Amino acid sequence: MAYRDEKLDEEKVFKDPVHRYVHVRDRVIWDLIGTREFQRLRRVKQLGTTYLTFHGAEHSRFSHSLGVYEIVRRILENFRDHKDWNEDERLLSLCAALLHDLGHGPFSHSFEKAFRLDHEDYTQSILLGDTEVNRVLSGVEEGFPKKVADVINKTYTDKLVVSLISSQIDADRMDYLQRDAYFTGVSYGHFDMERILRVMRPLEDQVAIKESGMHAVEDYIMSRYQMYWQIYFHPVTRSAEVILSKILKRAKELYKNGYEFELKPVHFFSFFEEAPSLEEYLDLDENVVMYYFQMWIREKDPILSDLCERFVNRKLFKYIEFNPNLQMNAWRELYDLFEEAGVDPRFYLEVDSSSDLPYDFYRPGEEGERLPIHLLQPDGGLKELSRLSEIVESISGKKRTDHKLYFPADTVEQISDEKTKQRIKGILYGREEQ
Amino acid sequence: MAYRDEKLDEEKVFKDPVHRYVHVRDRVIWDLIGTREFQRLRRVKQLGTTYLTFHGAEHSRFSHSLGVYEIVRRILENFRDHKDWNEDERLLSLCAALLHDLGHGPFSHSFEKAFRLDHEDYTQSILLGDTEVNRVLSGVEEGFPKKVADVINKTYTDKLVVSLISSQIDADRMDYLQRDAYFTGVSYGHFDMERILRVMRPLEDQVAIKESGMHAVEDYIMSRYQMYWQIYFHPVTRSAEVILSKILKRAKELYKNGYEFELKPVHFFSFFEEAPSLEEYLDLDENVVMYYFQMWIREKDPILSDLCERFVNRKLFKYIEFNPNLQMNAWRELYDLFEEAGVDPRFYLEVDSSSDLPYDFYRPGEEGERLPIHLLQPDGGLKELSRLSEIVESISGKKRTDHKLYFPADTVEQISDEKTKQRIKGILYGREEQ
Amino acid sequence: MAYRDEKLDEEKVFKDPVHRYVHVRDRVIWDLIGTREFQRLRRVKQLGTTYLTFHGAEHSRFSHSLGVYEIVRRILENFRDHKDWNEDERLLSLCAALLHDLGHGPFSHSFEKAFRLDHEDYTQSILLGDTEVNRVLSGVEEGFPKKVADVINKTYTDKLVVSLISSQIDADRMDYLQRDAYFTGVSYGHFDMERILRVMRPLEDQVAIKESGMHAVEDYIMSRYQMYWQIYFHPVTRSAEVILSKILKRAKELYKNGYEFELKPVHFFSFFEEAPSLEEYLDLDENVVMYYFQMWIREKDPILSDLCERFVNRKLFKYIEFNPNLQMNAWRELYDLFEEAGVDPRFYLEVDSSSDLPYDFYRPGEEGERLPIHLLQPDGGLKELSRLSEIVESISGKKRTDHKLYFPADTVEQISDEKTKQRIKGILYGREEQ
Amino acid sequence: MAYRDEKLDEEKVFKDPVHRYVHVRDRVIWDLIGTREFQRLRRVKQLGTTYLTFHGAEHSRFSHSLGVYEIVRRILENFRDHKDWNEDERLLSLCAALLHDLGHGPFSHSFEKAFRLDHEDYTQSILLGDTEVNRVLSGVEEGFPKKVADVINKTYTDKLVVSLISSQIDADRMDYLQRDAYFTGVSYGHFDMERILRVMRPLEDQVAIKESGMHAVEDYIMSRYQMYWQIYFHPVTRSAEVILSKILKRAKELYKNGYEFELKPVHFFSFFEEAPSLEEYLDLDENVVMYYFQMWIREKDPILSDLCERFVNRKLFKYIEFNPNLQMNAWRELYDLFEEAGVDPRFYLEVDSSSDLPYDFYRPGEEGERLPIHLLQPDGGLKELSRLSEIVESISGKKRTDHKLYFPADTVEQISDEKTKQRIKGILYGREEQ
Repeated sequence: MAYRDEKLDEEKVFKDPVHRYVHVRDRVIWDLIGTREFQRLRRVKQLGTTYLTFHGAEHSRFSHSLGVYEIVRRILENFRDHKDWNEDERLLSLCAALLHDLGHGPFSHSFEKAFRLDHEDYTQSILLGDTEVNRVLSGVEEGFPKKVADVINKTYTDKLVVSLISSQIDADRMDYLQRDAYFTGVSYGHFDMERILRVMRPLEDQVAIKESGMHAVEDYIMSRYQMYWQIYFHPVTRSAEVILSKILKRAKELYKNGYEFELKPVHFFSFFEEAPSLEEYLDLDENVVMYYFQMWIREKDPILSDLCERFVNRKLFKYIEFNPNLQMNAWRELYDLFEEAGVDPRFYLEVDSSSDLPYDFYRPGEEGERLPIHLLQPDGGLKELSRLSEIVESISGKKRTDHKLYFPADTVEQISDEKTKQRIKGILYGREEQ
Repeated sequence: MAYRDEKLDEEKVFKDPVHRYVHVRDRVIWDLIGTREFQRLRRVKQLGTTYLTFHGAEHSRFSHSLGVYEIVRRILENFRDHKDWNEDERLLSLCAALLHDLGHGPFSHSFEKAFRLDHEDYTQSILLGDTEVNRVLSGVEEGFPKKVADVINKTYTDKLVVSLISSQIDADRMDYLQRDAYFTGVSYGHFDMERILRVMRPLEDQVAIKESGMHAVEDYIMSRYQMYWQIYFHPVTRSAEVILSKILKRAKELYKNGYEFELKPVHFFSFFEEAPSLEEYLDLDENVVMYYFQMWIREKDPILSDLCERFVNRKLFKYIEFNPNLQMNAWRELYDLFEEAGVDPRFYLEVDSSSDLPYDFYRPGEEGERLPIHLLQPDGGLKELSRLSEIVESISGKKRTDHKLYFPADTVEQISDEKTKQRIKGILYGREEQ
Repeated sequence: MAYRDEKLDEEKVFKDPVHRYVHVRDRVIWDLIGTREFQRLRRVKQLGTTYLTFHGAEHSRFSHSLGVYEIVRRILENFRDHKDWNEDERLLSLCAALLHDLGHGPFSHSFEKAFRLDHEDYTQSILLGDTEVNRVLSGVEEGFPKKVADVINKTYTDKLVVSLISSQIDADRMDYLQRDAYFTGVSYGHFDMERILRVMRPLEDQVAIKESGMHAVEDYIMSRYQMYWQIYFHPVTRSAEVILSKILKRAKELYKNGYEFELKPVHFFSFFEEAPSLEEYLDLDENVVMYYFQMWIREKDPILSDLCERFVNRKLFKYIEFNPNLQMNAWRELYDLFEEAGVDPRFYLEVDSSSDLPYDFYRPGEEGERLPIHLLQPDGGLKELSRLSEIVESISGKKRTDHKLYFPADTVEQISDEKTKQRIKGILYGREEQ
Repeated sequence: MAYRDEKLDEEKVFKDPVHRYVHVRDRVIWDLIGTREFQRLRRVKQLGTTYLTFHGAEHSRFSHSLGVYEIVRRILENFRDHKDWNEDERLLSLCAALLHDLGHGPFSHSFEKAFRLDHEDYTQSILLGDTEVNRVLSGVEEGFPKKVADVINKTYTDKLVVSLISSQIDADRMDYLQRDAYFTGVSYGHFDMERILRVMRPLEDQVAIKESGMHAVEDYIMSRYQMYWQIYFHPVTRSAEVILSKILKRAKELYKNGYEFELKPVHFFSFFEEAPSLEEYLDLDENVVMYYFQMWIREKDPILSDLCERFVNRKLFKYIEFNPNLQMNAWRELYDLFEEAGVDPRFYLEVDSSSDLPYDFYRPGEEGERLPIHLLQPDGGLKELSRLSEIVESISGKKRTDHKLYFPADTVEQISDEKTKQRIKGILYGREEQ
């Protein structure tokens, strides 16, 4: 039998807390899961620094990837007999679902900003480069790795396949909302996925939702909305990310300045040069990063040491609301005061805006946006969701930004010049503490 | 106000997937959670290598410790007005609950066996040594750290306090059964804790259970039974532990033999000498261990490299049932055959027995055992659980051991001497493959 | 000890699927639950005819009433130490919570419309009349029954007490949303009640919600929205209600016309006269009503018999969308055609509008509305919810009406005059079936 | 297309709280659900008088029957491609699953004992008699109703089909354990049905369970055990059943004695004669029974009136433990004392034994027992469950009987002869109250 059609002697199942079981029957899928590049996802947390806010959020991208695979598998079971679904695309869809996050590095968002990387480029490199994953995919048929890469890159010709993992209601989102809710323990994030799967209909270039399922989809959109504000944009999580970014910035600066590290950051060199090779990129998972951070607590550079201590032992920055339109003068004054007090503001003062975060609400029609959700009407016509749903209409297209100013409250307390300290606290906490 | 009585301005809550919320009102508890020794528990998984079998089991001892604290907090809320409960022991009980696992090192079981350590000794050292935890506890009153250490060590005079975290139905077990079930996703591990908490009654030297709650306790005992066989003793998890032990054994051997490591295992030196200081012990968390394992894949020693590759990328040993009474000759023959084939049996052949594992069933009356569960009868008398419950009676005191022989099936396949390979496979798989 | 302060020797608990346990410590509460008027609520379904759409919805007002009591009990536990809460109102609040639905009759909505009754009047009568409930309440103190009646009637002076069971986020709604979701099995209806209880703050005249709990409240409002459209306004449920109303209308008409019933509707006489006494009202629960309906299947009046057969054996009317602005002519034509065909349109043709149903969305500021939800801000100020929440703003104040035209599709098929039948079907189903 | 193969244009789904959705595609199934005999099951509670103990237990046999159907449907989806499964038996199996409880009357257990009826006989009569159900089944093929009746009667030739709904681990039990747990709200009753369905294997004459699923089956057996003792044998439920039996006994006695009823029990006449016709049997559902009980509260016979008042308004009998071996003399004395006091002991004193209840534990090999559970071993052999499972072994075959003596504690208090009252109370409550 051709490798692409090979089935396991006995179906393998993974116990999964979110989907109960993940079922694997294809040998290709089983072999992909066993590759070192896929196993590496166990060492990258799904939610980065969120575990410092919600202690349950210690789950990895490994379990999320299995979950996305499982959802696509279930969708395709329902599609099997539909005339608009091409069963030849099944294995391709499953592979793309499983591998869509393969290029994620440690604490993705912060690393990508600090070192000008894009995890999507690395996903492509892993799929197409000299890797175990590539060898498995190549066994399916010539050009198969490229096909998988194209689906993940949204450039594959069959847009229906693309939409399974990249649309406004794709398997990726449906898994992470439920999974992140489960592990953090919040009661948001629940929606009736079983119903949504039942009302999905394959069309030529997208998955549409039968109009009778509109309320289930509304619930899904609301879950997204709540999860973003309750979990993904949580200000304490962002405090940890601010510190993480500052560590990377400081380490790079020290490296550029020829500082003599106690523990040489050999794993970071190519990152500091903004040109890690694929191998170097794969080597730097969150275990390795945390190893350095733990070691760097003992570096003699006080800023690097302090920031690492803060991250590792969760001594985070505090925050206040910040209005960039009204408070820029205050910010400049703070900046100067920090400098006067010997607290380097480049590392200890930061405005963080939720709008910089890589999450999107439902914004139909916006340029570069993912395909909006279409409802399939009894007469066969399509209508965009927000035209039928008042609730979705009310939250779509709106951009609510939340700015916070982060600073080390404990360090401020230790400023020796009393007058400077009081002026800083006056600005930060308002009159009542002056 | 005395530090011991100090309350937070506003109650802090942690969102917890198992208990919904963990509530903290005491400043002492809040400060303990902020110490570096407690934060370190985030870097020690609750279930060691189990995540390689159940991918959801990535949770840490940090969340378990908060859970045990929360259960004791709820128990004590119920005890508040009971004449047999001394409210002065409240804070002590909460501290002991929170800190009872403080000394756990990375992959506890394997490390303790390999290096003859005992995590309980380290818990004592952390509580009594020069640590942030000790400084917080000392603030409560003189001798308070020792009291906490005594409760955890089961030597504290008030046995009722001890029994809250060390008995057959203590907060420790009630948390881990539920938590491990939640994160692995299995349906075992559920029991009606709310009911058990309601029927707990403080006696002079123990917590008894009102007889009307017997069925809830039976359910709890059954959950334990199922969790042990389904989760804790899972043969795949044990395969990963076997490999882990072999890595440690090999690294120590190489060290003793003066092998030149590419990456010097400085964090391990004192462990190889079986005398790590407290600081050295605390430094070696699972991040650090995994860092070494990942680096050692590139060591030139083929055994160390291969074993680390297996552990990091989950290329585990296979296993077969093994009856030590009947099959010792087969084992000896295998051992010799492995040697002949150049596969060092000291590292590639292992019999693992579940009875070696640090879990216990319910065994009332056994020497050194924890206090059995006593049911409080309407007339005020006490009866040991297994005398009233047929189900518990049926499983208590029994020792079911499960032996498995672990070996690298892939390596066996690559043995070049065909005859040796066939004899090995004949022994391992029986006649049908010869 | 005074009866009002009397505690049960041992707390009683009811196992409740929604709140896990309902706890009763006060003898007054225990005695109220034992009265015949409260036990009668077991014979009135919480959701009327909904069980014909969602087969799980067989739960009664008895369990809902216990649930509302339990929620208020938990709220008051949190309020105990707040300066704005008067602990003397505790028992009153609990009684009002338990008894707020006491006057509900069988299939409330339909009966109230058919016989011009108001269940709230009967709640007052039961509390103040010659009943077991009144005797228990009178034992608390003179005038206590009146106080309870006033709280339920929203005329009690302490508006904070009133708001516990009658506001936009009261215990009544919080119970029924969760309970109805649980028994129907839908995934809507979930919100984090534990969190809402924790952020409730007693003010002088209402319960406010701390602003930090806004997202939990949004989730609650969304649950309401989804439950109304998915459950409460379900068109199949309304079909059963239409038939039920027609049965009552027909029975009354027959009675007025002196028709000789096989089974004389003695329980209904006073209802037909629109003046049931309290005793007559209490006698007519859903068991009794169903008994008559089952018997009336054998009545010789073909309309009464047919309608009862439809209700009892779930042979419901079909429905089509109906636009009263555009389709009144069609409706009139149908009416005439039905008459021609010998199908009495007064009993077999009905337009039902969801806006007639006794449920409300969140409509702050509307005349006669319940108190809106106020968020308590960090500075102590209050803001109405929809001013802070975009989502709530988007659905509040809107009145979405849904009209359906109900008719017996099977009867239409049996119309003997082919031409009339085809014209009727043309109007009902559109051109394609003509 | 033949009626037996006819599919609905669109799959119908029922929202079910236990199985999430019940799916119907076959027109035959859809038509059966619509029959009056099946709809009648809405008026028979699944758990009889249990709702007086667990207020959530108001669910009917209607929802249970749908659940059993759904489980068999899922089992058969897994069986589809197995060589030992004959797909021609599919529709038969589904019909038998759906209809297996069709003959249950009101409060089955009590009625069957009081009037010497057997609901299984009536199931046969409904299937084979002049009913809507029979007409639907007859449309499938000649003799089909008889086949369905044989499957339910366990006399059908294909024992594999029989075992789906009548074995130690059949769809009937799997549904009711979960459903009854869900509606009562207890935490017992949970087991991993999804896993059990996956390890079921069709054999020639039974369904076997793969040995790897043993732990899931153990959990199921434990659920049964717990549910029996916690729910099905609950002494308060049995108190209500005792009263119910006494009402039937009294009504029959009065009827035999020519008593003039205010409300003539016309629906009961044929039952009193122990020969109800099928039509008479079907007419007497729980609504009708409750109607009589409510009316009879106003009968002039004090015993009938009192007993009905007790049942309707839940003024139940109290109970004490009773040892029939030791306490027969006490019982006889009580009997006489009750007579002396004018409290007719034939209606007010009863020993009820759980062993009389129609539930069985797992008792392999017992005469007349259902087929035991067989585990399918890797080598294809079968082993009976209790030989492999210590836990099951420990509870199987044991008969634990629980005797209670029921009596009206309030009536005893009102006995006017002080001496008689004290002697009665002395026997009932022991010395302390004398």
